[in-house]
Amino acid sequence: MAEKKISAAVIKRLPRYYRYLSELLEQGIDRISSGELSKQMKVTASQIRQDFNNFGGFGQQGYGYNVAYLKDEIGKILGLNRNYHVIILGAGNLGHALANYAGFEKRGFVVSGVFDIDKAKIGLKIGQVEVMDMNGLRDFIAAYPVDIAALTLPRSQAAAVARELVELGVSAFWNFAAIDLNLPKEIAVENVHLAESLMRLSYNISNLPRE
Amino acid sequence: MAEKKISAAVIKRLPRYYRYLSELLEQGIDRISSGELSKQMKVTASQIRQDFNNFGGFGQQGYGYNVAYLKDEIGKILGLNRNYHVIILGAGNLGHALANYAGFEKRGFVVSGVFDIDKAKIGLKIGQVEVMDMNGLRDFIAAYPVDIAALTLPRSQAAAVARELVELGVSAFWNFAAIDLNLPKEIAVENVHLAESLMRLSYNISNLPRE
Repeated sequence: MAEKKISAAVIKRLPRYYRYLSELLEQGIDRISSGELSKQMKVTASQIRQDFNNFGGFGQQGYGYNVAYLKDEIGKILGLNRNYHVIILGAGNLGHALANYAGFEKRGFVVSGVFDIDKAKIGLKIGQVEVMDMNGLRDFIAAYPVDIAALTLPRSQAAAVARELVELGVSAFWNFAAIDLNLPKEIAVENVHLAESLMRLSYNISNLPRE
Repeated sequence: MAEKKISAAVIKRLPRYYRYLSELLEQGIDRISSGELSKQMKVTASQIRQDFNNFGGFGQQGYGYNVAYLKDEIGKILGLNRNYHVIILGAGNLGHALANYAGFEKRGFVVSGVFDIDKAKIGLKIGQVEVMDMNGLRDFIAAYPVDIAALTLPRSQAAAVARELVELGVSAFWNFAAIDLNLPKEIAVENVHLAESLMRLSYNISNLPRE
């Protein structure tokens, strides 16, 4: 793969391509033209070709794309050709939802630990793992690899826990707390700000085109 | 407020302004300069002024912004000066998390119903509401206002349920299912594709600047 800088907009679109290609494979479709992919995804064929050209084009357009190959190549670009050990901080409903979602494990994101400070939750089983005491974090990270920390704890605790995790060597965060973590730039942070998402929806409700 | 078209990028930033202004108010700060806001939010002061100029500027910069006024005005633009009746389709962990999150109600998003097809879940209490049988959707929507439907059901059911809801008059969707709903353009859809978010994180893990 070329080492040139890929634009953030292209990167943002790659997971959607990956999702469509996965669905096509599930449906037993192993070859697709850019025109047909364009129709299904409702983006222009030229957009698709431009996006794919960032990565060398992924094969002959005349014959269409090989779905399995294309999915695999995009998966490699997305870093999906390896496993990630995920810990979840906060065993509330959202933490449960993430720990139980089978789709993540299928993609290589394996939940290896769930932590909480609530004594009533410690010891409960979620999926394959037991909720552990947040006080045991340091020992856990010393003993096991942790690639991603998912933060599903309250805003008031998230930043401090994230800083502690960075000190312990964790370098990627999936942040659901309604706060900007402000971590060093070599730390990867992906935010899911649900309240902001809901506000974008209310904006759109107020500003929809009406007949 | 001017009727000119505001760019999607500006709209996307408004909820973050709203979040910071809410936090400032909670801290008892009632006036802030664009310079100080810029420092806290880590965006340039010129970006802030440009964004706000889309809406008339929100008052004298020399004396700083009035935090409560600014929060209120941005809230109005975001459509937060009213209540929204929200129903949740799918009483799994994610549905529970959304129904229990107090922050949404504080912003005016009131959960008025949770629906599932699973007989074991029907009748269970989540927060203030009882899980209802999905078969009762039509009657519920005929009897009560529904402004937003949150879809936390499996991909295989989400599209069909969304189409049914559109026929019943629901015009806004908060979609957590890993599928594009492809609804008419007068329907507002805000997607939260968690698997795609996780893939962007794994991309960033693989492509971080390393010292």
